[in-house]
Amino acid sequence: METRVILINCPDQKGIVARVTGCLFQRGLNIVSNWEFVEAETTRFFMRTEVEGALGETDLVTELRGLLPAGSTVRLAANRKKRIVILATRESHCLGDLLIRCRFNEMNAVVQGVISNHAVLGSLVESFGHPFHHLSHENKSREEHEADVVRVLEPYAADYLVLAKYMRVLSADFVERFPHRIINIHHSFLPAFIGANPYQQAHERGVKIIGATAHYVTAELDDGPIIAQDVVPVGHQHGPKQLARAGHNVEKIVLARALNLVLDDRVFVSGNKTVIFD
Amino acid sequence: METRVILINCPDQKGIVARVTGCLFQRGLNIVSNWEFVEAETTRFFMRTEVEGALGETDLVTELRGLLPAGSTVRLAANRKKRIVILATRESHCLGDLLIRCRFNEMNAVVQGVISNHAVLGSLVESFGHPFHHLSHENKSREEHEADVVRVLEPYAADYLVLAKYMRVLSADFVERFPHRIINIHHSFLPAFIGANPYQQAHERGVKIIGATAHYVTAELDDGPIIAQDVVPVGHQHGPKQLARAGHNVEKIVLARALNLVLDDRVFVSGNKTVIFD
Amino acid sequence: METRVILINCPDQKGIVARVTGCLFQRGLNIVSNWEFVEAETTRFFMRTEVEGALGETDLVTELRGLLPAGSTVRLAANRKKRIVILATRESHCLGDLLIRCRFNEMNAVVQGVISNHAVLGSLVESFGHPFHHLSHENKSREEHEADVVRVLEPYAADYLVLAKYMRVLSADFVERFPHRIINIHHSFLPAFIGANPYQQAHERGVKIIGATAHYVTAELDDGPIIAQDVVPVGHQHGPKQLARAGHNVEKIVLARALNLVLDDRVFVSGNKTVIFD
Amino acid sequence: METRVILINCPDQKGIVARVTGCLFQRGLNIVSNWEFVEAETTRFFMRTEVEGALGETDLVTELRGLLPAGSTVRLAANRKKRIVILATRESHCLGDLLIRCRFNEMNAVVQGVISNHAVLGSLVESFGHPFHHLSHENKSREEHEADVVRVLEPYAADYLVLAKYMRVLSADFVERFPHRIINIHHSFLPAFIGANPYQQAHERGVKIIGATAHYVTAELDDGPIIAQDVVPVGHQHGPKQLARAGHNVEKIVLARALNLVLDDRVFVSGNKTVIFD
Repeated sequence: METRVILINCPDQKGIVARVTGCLFQRGLNIVSNWEFVEAETTRFFMRTEVEGALGETDLVTELRGLLPAGSTVRLAANRKKRIVILATRESHCLGDLLIRCRFNEMNAVVQGVISNHAVLGSLVESFGHPFHHLSHENKSREEHEADVVRVLEPYAADYLVLAKYMRVLSADFVERFPHRIINIHHSFLPAFIGANPYQQAHERGVKIIGATAHYVTAELDDGPIIAQDVVPVGHQHGPKQLARAGHNVEKIVLARALNLVLDDRVFVSGNKTVIFD
Repeated sequence: METRVILINCPDQKGIVARVTGCLFQRGLNIVSNWEFVEAETTRFFMRTEVEGALGETDLVTELRGLLPAGSTVRLAANRKKRIVILATRESHCLGDLLIRCRFNEMNAVVQGVISNHAVLGSLVESFGHPFHHLSHENKSREEHEADVVRVLEPYAADYLVLAKYMRVLSADFVERFPHRIINIHHSFLPAFIGANPYQQAHERGVKIIGATAHYVTAELDDGPIIAQDVVPVGHQHGPKQLARAGHNVEKIVLARALNLVLDDRVFVSGNKTVIFD
Repeated sequence: METRVILINCPDQKGIVARVTGCLFQRGLNIVSNWEFVEAETTRFFMRTEVEGALGETDLVTELRGLLPAGSTVRLAANRKKRIVILATRESHCLGDLLIRCRFNEMNAVVQGVISNHAVLGSLVESFGHPFHHLSHENKSREEHEADVVRVLEPYAADYLVLAKYMRVLSADFVERFPHRIINIHHSFLPAFIGANPYQQAHERGVKIIGATAHYVTAELDDGPIIAQDVVPVGHQHGPKQLARAGHNVEKIVLARALNLVLDDRVFVSGNKTVIFD
Repeated sequence: METRVILINCPDQKGIVARVTGCLFQRGLNIVSNWEFVEAETTRFFMRTEVEGALGETDLVTELRGLLPAGSTVRLAANRKKRIVILATRESHCLGDLLIRCRFNEMNAVVQGVISNHAVLGSLVESFGHPFHHLSHENKSREEHEADVVRVLEPYAADYLVLAKYMRVLSADFVERFPHRIINIHHSFLPAFIGANPYQQAHERGVKIIGATAHYVTAELDDGPIIAQDVVPVGHQHGPKQLARAGHNVEKIVLARALNLVLDDRVFVSGNKTVIFD
């Protein structure tokens, strides 16, 4: 039987769960799994409900909105694979991992195309049968380059942009076009080692663990809501190059984990944080 | 404001969430967090709801039971620290860890007493001000020894028995007296290395990771529902003694994690598995 | 400056390190890193030395052998990428990961070719420019099928065979042709869940962690020397399919980690165990 | 047979290992384990050698120093338990863990005494039979308070001071009295969340992992050489209080792991980093 996911984010109030689940029951829907959470600081209420059954003839989202306080959002997750466009620069490990996963249906996404400011990854992408757009940033202002990217992006109507080691900082203007729809992998355990060369920084600090952080991109560099993080142990014997190799493993796993959470509609954004039901 | 936890376990049916949350709303209770899960194999429904507010004058549990199908259990978690009795043998690491945590309110439990089949841990226990019962098993049948244990246990009216490296196998008769109320820490990543000397076994097999498993005790040795597991990396340079030292760390952390889950009323048992809302 | 790795495995004896390092000093070699280990049970001595400088005109290995007791092995690691042949069945995650790593020089190996008993992975392999050999096992005895595999393998002169989710059990005869040169990824934390369907087994047992084990293949199924292991946490909400997805991540990371150790000449085999200098 | 550990730290030079191991062989010592490492940036050479046998009549350290370049340090690790003094403030989890471990010989140390700027931990310490010194910092300048601490410390002739959640910042003067002999546990994954209230900071940033860092104390706050780090996963549902509870587990495990490395003479300090042979 078909399963659908309903996502509600609203100011907290007594009786919300009763009203929402009452409405679902009236429609003959069976609740397969359900999570609710009230964030203490904001008193926002978050709910993810997975239901089984035919949704009914009248619009469920409209009816649910009518039951909830002002300032609510209700979303019925699409029951199709999500459309993603991947942005990369020169490094292959995250991009390659996503291409393999999508090709073999290990990820709830269809790759629409890949954009890179370098040419080196083109033959890999094309061997997977996806369009590859080499949009060099050389001799262009950031605005000009981003305009090129937007021009290529638009026809794809992507649900999400995935920055798979895309090494350009995006402008606030660009980010605002895709609110909470750009996911980045940062090569450190944020907030440690913000900015460039985190493996060099990690080596110089002599850390015993390195990490990776997948987050939504916001206008503030490396400061968007965190979706997933993980780490690997390292030692004094690892130079910056070996730290990078260890880091690549954790980067690709963390990016894929975060993307799976997003693609499976398990993530809410609340201010600069995420609420994840998994 | 007071927060209470309601635990429901029943055959799945459409409308359960609506009925339960409708009832809570009628009583003016606010739902702070809520988890539901339907186990596919058994079609059992599990729900853990944390509510804020006065429960009301008539009995909430009785009313909820009336709303649910036959074969349901409804439990309102006690809003007091749980009473625990700890059983140990000779090893100090798990016992000591629990004594420290309970003494400094890092665990939702009050230690009633400690029972051991050896004398060696007595002075530690007494220095924490708890009764220590040395019940030797020597020259006794298992039945006689367990009868001694039961005799000591009974006046404590413990909510849970914690086997903190208690090295005696309990009889089915004993276990049945405390259904889902005995928690054990097993010194391996179950189901690997069932039985005695797991660190020796692990060393001989040359594993690169060792683990620990906290589980409810059932009549089948090392086969009860698993509550928590974790591992630590090891290497060829670690002999059985060093494996044991590494293992002790993970044992005490896993036992404490599992106990916290149980004491905070986050664990359901379903057949030979657990459903944990955390 | 060129760096070379020397690997010594011999019965323990006083003065071995002094003799070996004296010899290296005579030749003007600088020791960059050095590990030694004496295995207590076997009193075998293991040494991995990385030296910088020209090796000298006479044969270093022969000279070192002359300094060591009977029963010693001395190996000078090849200073070239290792030649690997990958065997797979239907699953893409480990194979795809290795193909990406080798293509972008993140692994010290050159893929010679891929052999599979199914056709499904052919287009992936060919898009990477490697030969793909579909050797069906249907209507063949194990001996006949393995003879086909050996026929294809031989011209490649592979240093190592990598079983990247190859789901056929190899005969003792086949294994003996490639002693300590076949690396397998097993989809569980061995020795738990030996054999088929480990994710189903894991789900039925209700474990809270699943793992993967990379090991050398020996004649005993799932019982060869372990090279690397790792785990990921799982919960009651994960069915066998989600356990498999989580498991795939850990499988490919563990296989790559183990292969990197082998390819970088960091692994000794001692009986049914490994000694790893990393 | 007695086992002793020799620790050498010197400018790198060809032939060092040959000279040192030649000397050990002359004395009839057997090398049980041996690690060497050359740090690329500093070209310092580090060696940890475990030998079996009688050291011989003339002084081994003096002889070894004679074989090494200027600027070398040679240390023969004491073959006795190390003497430690623990400093704490109000929190019990790290202190309690160390007291249990030392009491039951799970750590190569003897607790000489405990110093705290608060009284609350006194009865715990005294129940373990150790002296407890309550040295309040109230109405005292930092210099005056540290002078009190030094006065109490001196007669103990401690090998190491352990800051087990000691919440006072030490002056450079104090730290210089105990170079590389003060070990601190910091309640974050350094360099993230330097300074006060790391769990509040972590909660506000919405991290999915929290960590702990054990390091040598230097004059720069939270910037000394890192010995050990580890992390635990957390989620949106964990408020600052639950983050702290999760953090306490990782703090005590990381502090104990780091201390064991130091007490077993496995740690070298090189500038602001550590070289660890384990």
